[in-house]
Amino acid sequence: MVTTKPDDRGRETADQAGPGGPARPSRRGLLAGAGLFGAGAVAGGLTGYFTHSGGQAAAGGGDTELGQQTVPFYGAHQAGIITPAQDRLAFGTMNVVDGTSRADLRDLLQEWTTAAARMTAGHLVGEESDPAAPPVDTGEAVGSPVSRLTITVGYGPALFDGRFGLAGRKPSALADLPPLPNENLDPDYTGGDLCVQACSDNPLVAFHAVRNLARIGMGVVAHNWMELGFGRTSTTSAAQATPRNLLGFKDGTRNLKAEQVDLLDKHVWVGTETDQPWLRGGSYLVARKIKMFIENWDRDYLQDQENVIGRAKVSGAPLSGGSEFTTPDFAKAGADGQPAIPADSHVRLASPEHNGGIHILRRGYSFTDGIDPQAGTLLGGLFFIGFMKSPSQFIKLQTSLATDALNEYIHHTGSAVFAVQPGLRPGQHYGDALFA
Amino acid sequence: MVTTKPDDRGRETADQAGPGGPARPSRRGLLAGAGLFGAGAVAGGLTGYFTHSGGQAAAGGGDTELGQQTVPFYGAHQAGIITPAQDRLAFGTMNVVDGTSRADLRDLLQEWTTAAARMTAGHLVGEESDPAAPPVDTGEAVGSPVSRLTITVGYGPALFDGRFGLAGRKPSALADLPPLPNENLDPDYTGGDLCVQACSDNPLVAFHAVRNLARIGMGVVAHNWMELGFGRTSTTSAAQATPRNLLGFKDGTRNLKAEQVDLLDKHVWVGTETDQPWLRGGSYLVARKIKMFIENWDRDYLQDQENVIGRAKVSGAPLSGGSEFTTPDFAKAGADGQPAIPADSHVRLASPEHNGGIHILRRGYSFTDGIDPQAGTLLGGLFFIGFMKSPSQFIKLQTSLATDALNEYIHHTGSAVFAVQPGLRPGQHYGDALFA
Repeated sequence: MVTTKPDDRGRETADQAGPGGPARPSRRGLLAGAGLFGAGAVAGGLTGYFTHSGGQAAAGGGDTELGQQTVPFYGAHQAGIITPAQDRLAFGTMNVVDGTSRADLRDLLQEWTTAAARMTAGHLVGEESDPAAPPVDTGEAVGSPVSRLTITVGYGPALFDGRFGLAGRKPSALADLPPLPNENLDPDYTGGDLCVQACSDNPLVAFHAVRNLARIGMGVVAHNWMELGFGRTSTTSAAQATPRNLLGFKDGTRNLKAEQVDLLDKHVWVGTETDQPWLRGGSYLVARKIKMFIENWDRDYLQDQENVIGRAKVSGAPLSGGSEFTTPDFAKAGADGQPAIPADSHVRLASPEHNGGIHILRRGYSFTDGIDPQAGTLLGGLFFIGFMKSPSQFIKLQTSLATDALNEYIHHTGSAVFAVQPGLRPGQHYGDALFA
Repeated sequence: MVTTKPDDRGRETADQAGPGGPARPSRRGLLAGAGLFGAGAVAGGLTGYFTHSGGQAAAGGGDTELGQQTVPFYGAHQAGIITPAQDRLAFGTMNVVDGTSRADLRDLLQEWTTAAARMTAGHLVGEESDPAAPPVDTGEAVGSPVSRLTITVGYGPALFDGRFGLAGRKPSALADLPPLPNENLDPDYTGGDLCVQACSDNPLVAFHAVRNLARIGMGVVAHNWMELGFGRTSTTSAAQATPRNLLGFKDGTRNLKAEQVDLLDKHVWVGTETDQPWLRGGSYLVARKIKMFIENWDRDYLQDQENVIGRAKVSGAPLSGGSEFTTPDFAKAGADGQPAIPADSHVRLASPEHNGGIHILRRGYSFTDGIDPQAGTLLGGLFFIGFMKSPSQFIKLQTSLATDALNEYIHHTGSAVFAVQPGLRPGQHYGDALFA
């Protein structure tokens, strides 16, 4: 709450907003910020850092040349999909507040565009110009390297329920996922009218992005749920070693890669098959919070773990032989005549070979929510994010995984699906095509 | 649970442990690991990375020269106290399981020593040598740079309650904190028989350390609570800019610094004043989970935020003038005759000048637990860690903060205190002096 204090520095101060403060301080702030700096201007002069005028780069492990890299905001597709996965994730979903009009929502998406373009370029949402107003930017990222920040926005099925005149714009493929095997969903981690996926090599920068977009939306949107992620599924080619998930296994060996343009067109980017032209060049994002029963897994024998996954733990090689990137030979038999890659192994059941050639682009992160206070066990696992041309791809894969041996060690506890619009050109805004 | 699978690679496999698997797979594993490599040996050959034989460095933002740095495990004090604060924290507390004997606990502390020395040197807990046993190391850090990992172990007051014959070893200064101003403690985030503070520039490496120590302790200790942290309080001198907390303000400007040896001796390291010689050269760790009411703060006017803290937000300069590292002039009056640094400002009430010259070494991190599902607000704030010669220092400071203007925006929701034994020489183990 805003309280009025003695102004000990001679500035005029007054609580002009009344009790509770201004509901939406952001628009004024954003415009002030834009007015001070204009599009693309850099405050301070330290490219690649979030700076106020006179700001200074902060210490930190991300404080390297890599940390100062930016990812272009504008392009055919939104950044954060085929962008090589950054190290950290902040994923937030929000619901539109009751009473919000179509125009309010559209305005918010425009403001989000301006703010996202600024932040991904390493600028604050805006500079502070008025001591008697809430700060335009929450400030925690000042001095932090931008660390390849990307912001990716998606629209949930409920956004098209008629509140905003968008019922006729709903893609027929966009719907809440049906009940699927091995899920035990927590209503506190499902759905959302909107999602914001912020990825960066610096968790503070990713958190700052979601926080500031929510703040700009105060009174129009409210947080639904959020998760931070660390570690990640590999989305790049084999130049560097594949990261590992909390099972201790490499994750992403057979994932689609950014350079596989033909496969991305076939499996990830929405094309002319959609009934909603505004979504062409976009994608669908499926998010699943997957809890691992970590202590059970940690008591399992190495060989059993490898049979569950279908790969060797250390090398990542398929149990049919070879090295990590050897194509699994699902037909190969072991010495005992049984399949070398077990029939109920995760790698077999999730494979394109087992699913009519389906691929998705996975972009998951490890997460932990601390300790279950009743059980004294770790709450953690994989925050799965997949991008695909249609949610039906995920539905098919997860249905195939009904007999996955890994199901003994995991449960899906959160779930959401979003339509991710295509990228923007300078001057365009989120929602332009959707609302047109 | 351990399930026996067809052995498709011709290895002998048997579930020798019976239902539920072995309760404590760790000791055999640890010894096997030590046997294979010996103390100080490097597996693989990639110094500074967690490697299995044949392991490969993983991709990532920490994958830099800095990422490969190790912090010495042995020394006069435990690492992780005056070590320049790494970017990420995993802080776990554990309780000793009912029925554990004094010998069991002592054995565990010895095993933890071996494992901590290995991990902080960039080695796995051990190498895998038996496919028909649980893996010795959980594996998720394989290929990750060690990223200055430190592990710091502490003993809570309850450890000295007589279960382990340690009642006579309890330092008189070690006791649960009394009720303090502005706290609303969640029992799920208080206390603990033991704590493990793992810090690293890579969150996966910090998490791996706590997970593996807990795993080694299966059957002897169980998780109590855990928190991950990002961002941090500054603990180094002004060579780099001071990081910011989620209030958007610089944090740690006046903190004790590692090079202030005299002040550390006076305020941080336990000396001859203790009634327990085993603790000399150690310290006390006070942990406080401090929830920020972020949305309220974000609606507050910039000038009010600055008056609450007592510093300018962007520059960090005290409101009495100067620049960030200018000593605050608490006597200075503003134009209106009121103190330039308000009487209820945080910086004034927490200052040594206001507290009889008391200093502590703060080593806090930002945290978030996602969204409050009822309120739709961010759950996040500062995970405060302070090191001090006696918990009475924290009690005095927090009592002084009873009238802190910042209390409108924060609550302390978690609390714990631990005695942190001094450092070890090679060959020594945690608990040697405590149990001697």
